[in-house]
Amino acid sequence: MVENIKNIAVLTSGGDAPGMNAAIRAVVRACSFYKIQCTGVYRGYQGLIEADFEPLDARSVRNIINQGGTFLKSTRSKEFRTKEGRKLAFDNLKANNIDALIVIGGDGTFTGGQLFSKEFGFPTVGIPATIDNDINGTDFTLGYDTALNTVVEAIDKIRDTASSHNRLFLVEVMGRDAGDIALNSGIGAGAEEILIPEENLGVEKLLDSLRKSKKSGKTSSIIVVAEGEKSGKNIFELASFIEENMDEYEVRVSVLGHIQRGGSPSCFDRVLASKLGVGAVEALMAGKTEIMIGIHHQKVVNIELLKAIKGDAKVDKELRRVADITSV
Amino acid sequence: MVENIKNIAVLTSGGDAPGMNAAIRAVVRACSFYKIQCTGVYRGYQGLIEADFEPLDARSVRNIINQGGTFLKSTRSKEFRTKEGRKLAFDNLKANNIDALIVIGGDGTFTGGQLFSKEFGFPTVGIPATIDNDINGTDFTLGYDTALNTVVEAIDKIRDTASSHNRLFLVEVMGRDAGDIALNSGIGAGAEEILIPEENLGVEKLLDSLRKSKKSGKTSSIIVVAEGEKSGKNIFELASFIEENMDEYEVRVSVLGHIQRGGSPSCFDRVLASKLGVGAVEALMAGKTEIMIGIHHQKVVNIELLKAIKGDAKVDKELRRVADITSV
Amino acid sequence: MVENIKNIAVLTSGGDAPGMNAAIRAVVRACSFYKIQCTGVYRGYQGLIEADFEPLDARSVRNIINQGGTFLKSTRSKEFRTKEGRKLAFDNLKANNIDALIVIGGDGTFTGGQLFSKEFGFPTVGIPATIDNDINGTDFTLGYDTALNTVVEAIDKIRDTASSHNRLFLVEVMGRDAGDIALNSGIGAGAEEILIPEENLGVEKLLDSLRKSKKSGKTSSIIVVAEGEKSGKNIFELASFIEENMDEYEVRVSVLGHIQRGGSPSCFDRVLASKLGVGAVEALMAGKTEIMIGIHHQKVVNIELLKAIKGDAKVDKELRRVADITSV
Amino acid sequence: MVENIKNIAVLTSGGDAPGMNAAIRAVVRACSFYKIQCTGVYRGYQGLIEADFEPLDARSVRNIINQGGTFLKSTRSKEFRTKEGRKLAFDNLKANNIDALIVIGGDGTFTGGQLFSKEFGFPTVGIPATIDNDINGTDFTLGYDTALNTVVEAIDKIRDTASSHNRLFLVEVMGRDAGDIALNSGIGAGAEEILIPEENLGVEKLLDSLRKSKKSGKTSSIIVVAEGEKSGKNIFELASFIEENMDEYEVRVSVLGHIQRGGSPSCFDRVLASKLGVGAVEALMAGKTEIMIGIHHQKVVNIELLKAIKGDAKVDKELRRVADITSV
Repeated sequence: MVENIKNIAVLTSGGDAPGMNAAIRAVVRACSFYKIQCTGVYRGYQGLIEADFEPLDARSVRNIINQGGTFLKSTRSKEFRTKEGRKLAFDNLKANNIDALIVIGGDGTFTGGQLFSKEFGFPTVGIPATIDNDINGTDFTLGYDTALNTVVEAIDKIRDTASSHNRLFLVEVMGRDAGDIALNSGIGAGAEEILIPEENLGVEKLLDSLRKSKKSGKTSSIIVVAEGEKSGKNIFELASFIEENMDEYEVRVSVLGHIQRGGSPSCFDRVLASKLGVGAVEALMAGKTEIMIGIHHQKVVNIELLKAIKGDAKVDKELRRVADITSV
Repeated sequence: MVENIKNIAVLTSGGDAPGMNAAIRAVVRACSFYKIQCTGVYRGYQGLIEADFEPLDARSVRNIINQGGTFLKSTRSKEFRTKEGRKLAFDNLKANNIDALIVIGGDGTFTGGQLFSKEFGFPTVGIPATIDNDINGTDFTLGYDTALNTVVEAIDKIRDTASSHNRLFLVEVMGRDAGDIALNSGIGAGAEEILIPEENLGVEKLLDSLRKSKKSGKTSSIIVVAEGEKSGKNIFELASFIEENMDEYEVRVSVLGHIQRGGSPSCFDRVLASKLGVGAVEALMAGKTEIMIGIHHQKVVNIELLKAIKGDAKVDKELRRVADITSV
Repeated sequence: MVENIKNIAVLTSGGDAPGMNAAIRAVVRACSFYKIQCTGVYRGYQGLIEADFEPLDARSVRNIINQGGTFLKSTRSKEFRTKEGRKLAFDNLKANNIDALIVIGGDGTFTGGQLFSKEFGFPTVGIPATIDNDINGTDFTLGYDTALNTVVEAIDKIRDTASSHNRLFLVEVMGRDAGDIALNSGIGAGAEEILIPEENLGVEKLLDSLRKSKKSGKTSSIIVVAEGEKSGKNIFELASFIEENMDEYEVRVSVLGHIQRGGSPSCFDRVLASKLGVGAVEALMAGKTEIMIGIHHQKVVNIELLKAIKGDAKVDKELRRVADITSV
Repeated sequence: MVENIKNIAVLTSGGDAPGMNAAIRAVVRACSFYKIQCTGVYRGYQGLIEADFEPLDARSVRNIINQGGTFLKSTRSKEFRTKEGRKLAFDNLKANNIDALIVIGGDGTFTGGQLFSKEFGFPTVGIPATIDNDINGTDFTLGYDTALNTVVEAIDKIRDTASSHNRLFLVEVMGRDAGDIALNSGIGAGAEEILIPEENLGVEKLLDSLRKSKKSGKTSSIIVVAEGEKSGKNIFELASFIEENMDEYEVRVSVLGHIQRGGSPSCFDRVLASKLGVGAVEALMAGKTEIMIGIHHQKVVNIELLKAIKGDAKVDKELRRVADITSV
């Protein structure tokens, strides 16, 4: 155990994700448990630069485990991308007797944290929180499970309308580079087809598939489309293309958008946040730095921040296979 | 009581709304209670023309009271707009010994039903079901209360993100001609501003209001925008306009879309559907025709279909006032 | 307008109900709108006695419209039932330059408020908030609509199990004196039978009804039982009684309990809270006192507190009729 | 691949769990994909004995992925526990040209399936579905994730009331032998203490803990209690014991009960059901029998049914540690 960790700062950065509040709470409570001071930093890295700090104790985080978003707020800070900005941040941390930093966020958050930690030798640990589940070295990121539930509940509602009217719905879900949300929510929502960034089905094959399923007796269909899908058409163009080629369907588009980022976290995300928050404090106490606290095979693991960042999206082929079989 | 009502047909038509299944169930159960046969018609008026009928008994409608959509399905029928189509429908009803018709839907559904009833002297009663709440003579239409809950739950999620990032969100909700959904959900979701079809605030006044509330200390805001809003800009243009004029805000757009039509009906809509369904059967038994069964001051009322159709949207000024006060 | 209303205190008292926070928010925002100071009182009447006050401005109530419970907390105060206690409360209000009081709660809250107002001539207005909907002079109390949705969602879950196993479920819902929750949620949940405090069906008739419905082909059933139901048996005794007399059913009991008091308020309750909160401030400004702000036929109304309190529960016979017909 | 698998029967047995319908769907769709006939068996093993069969094709299972319960129904069959009963079942399967059996359920279901398979050499594969997560060899059982979400949502509602009134709530959740639901939902709901069957905290330690947390400033608390908890007191006795010893708290009890078994499955459970259903069909095609299809480290695995049954509950010590730290 490292004796000189007496005050840990915690911030959230980048796009918010359900479970961020639960993670902050776990960090604060773990600090309280180990008699370490905890300092909340408002508005991510920008708050470091502006010394927007507030001491947090165990009671400061009551009744937030079930709240979406992040009460510490989050921004994207241009200033922190400059050496001068980061120097200011470091000076503020020192001036406030803060010994270590926990950053909660995704890829961009970790890139900033890793650079800062290396530059100033400041102990820094990351907690992966992004609905996209696109961080290396952790099986799950905070917010992902909640977002999947939000998406399937939304598509369940759309299905009511789709099956009442024998319609084809194209539903756009988040995922610029990773198809995890689309693939899992597509299976979970019983989608007919799922278009993901990692592969290009081709619009002709899509038509073939729709024709086949129409012939098999399907009267309505849902196609889940990830934002970053590679057909070369946006979702509205795709809808027109299908309508032109299959006049047996009325096609409708629904872009789920920002509702996917919010909402009360699922139990899974709350428990995961609790594990990761405790793990982050304990890692700092053990003298670790420049790592992310992840979950792998249900165990808390430490991954070098540099490795966590360099994600290369690859489709889960087994899941794709299950999708193809169950949409028969 | 009219002795010759021995078989009542029921159909759903137009856009689907939560509570349609509950209304069908109530019609079927009331028929069963009064020993009247009940015939389900699939796919609205088109099903009348194609004789797509199925006898329904009390057990046929088990476990559907909580389901969104309509298991009888709904289409828009071009054929029923022709005299020939309606004649076919009438012949099918006669051939199947059906004595009366209950049509569940909105404005278009009632127009068709009224015309049909008048042409052939066929006893016809309407039940108002549309999330837009734009039917005259009834305080509430089926699906409206559920849609309001769906909208506020969606905006609650968006608020998580908005307040985490100090953002301004424009949220588009349904309502081409009527601002009821926007006004109520806007108050319910704590919106900063609400733009409705019945009035044109003017984009300059909108900016003024946003500037004022920014000054008052608001760090994030939600603006609820009805589809049929009258600023002359679509929601994306409106977002750009605000961003250009208020660089203190990041502006985001969310179009809620079709999720508003689906979902399990609220208790209010289930009870309302039960009252209206029973009321429709009893009205036919009492020899009534060309009426809608509505709810007014919590009592079931009968309104001439012709009066129900001719809605003129007018904003609830008291509600607008409450919105202005509580968004201070 | 009464010029001397410059500072209004607001408190919540008695059992909490969803929508209390939204009502506090509306009171605070209306005060802000009219340039009146607003003072929050913690822990109901006990907080008056202990001068547990906090000034509230428009920003103090941000992001609470969607929260269940009451951030001002609520207790039952024995001290306030004494003349001495109430005198202390009055002195504290005077010492803090508070001119008027808004009390949010049910029957007990209003009794206390009415007495206090009369004794000291202190302007006092009530807002009805209780899930039981048992206040005279208002069509709806805050929290009632939300509780109905909570109950039907819970019974929807129980129905999954009931119909999977051909079981009979007895579900106890709140309502010691009033059957409104039971009757409405029973219809909404598609219950077979509904037992309410206002009438005694008799256990033999219950058996008859169950036997009849079993014969009609029902394979599972839900019976909704209000707490204050009058069979003379508690719900577990009732279950045993049915099992002994109908061995074709496995009977199970579920007591919904306190989940009915919590949860994010429905849109209906949020809008109602907004109207009543604004109405309360405006009534005080108009010089009114010893009244409750209620809703009748969708309009805000003023009712003497004394009349609001003296409720006599009576069953909605029309609703009972609809329940009997739709459970065929 | 085994050529002689041409018709697979599927049944659900024991307590129902969310995701059973999704698993049936996946079995049916996988059969359809591989051109194998699929036969639904109603009412579990009893339906085998009574030959209560129905052929299922891909369209038979539309719109059920999001439904709780099991449309094939489930019973506990005494007859199947006899050799004669099982012989009847075998004869019925043979008479209907059924070559293999998929049984969806928990411990009891697998015991029956294993015995049956061994006795008659009938290819049988199990899919674990029980909210208790108490099956060996699989990281998760169907329904468990959904039940966790149901529990935390219920406790979130109770928390509204608890924190409005400064109350202590004892909330009983399912888990006769396993504390998984209590431990995870307790962390997820931010419980103060969690009582589970695998350990006996002792009532005195519980009081100590409550006194400590009261001193630390907590004003309300939730204690999650698993059904099979080992204090020797039932939950109502426990409540009285605490009230007698800590008069600073009003104590309330909430028994969540059967709502935990129902509800629309979470995305996690729907995807898991899809994987396991496909895996079960493919295992039978590969000639396997007397195995359960489980999930381990996110991969589908095969476990001997005999091993799956012999569970020995052991508490997840790491999770217990996280619970203790985050409830500080």
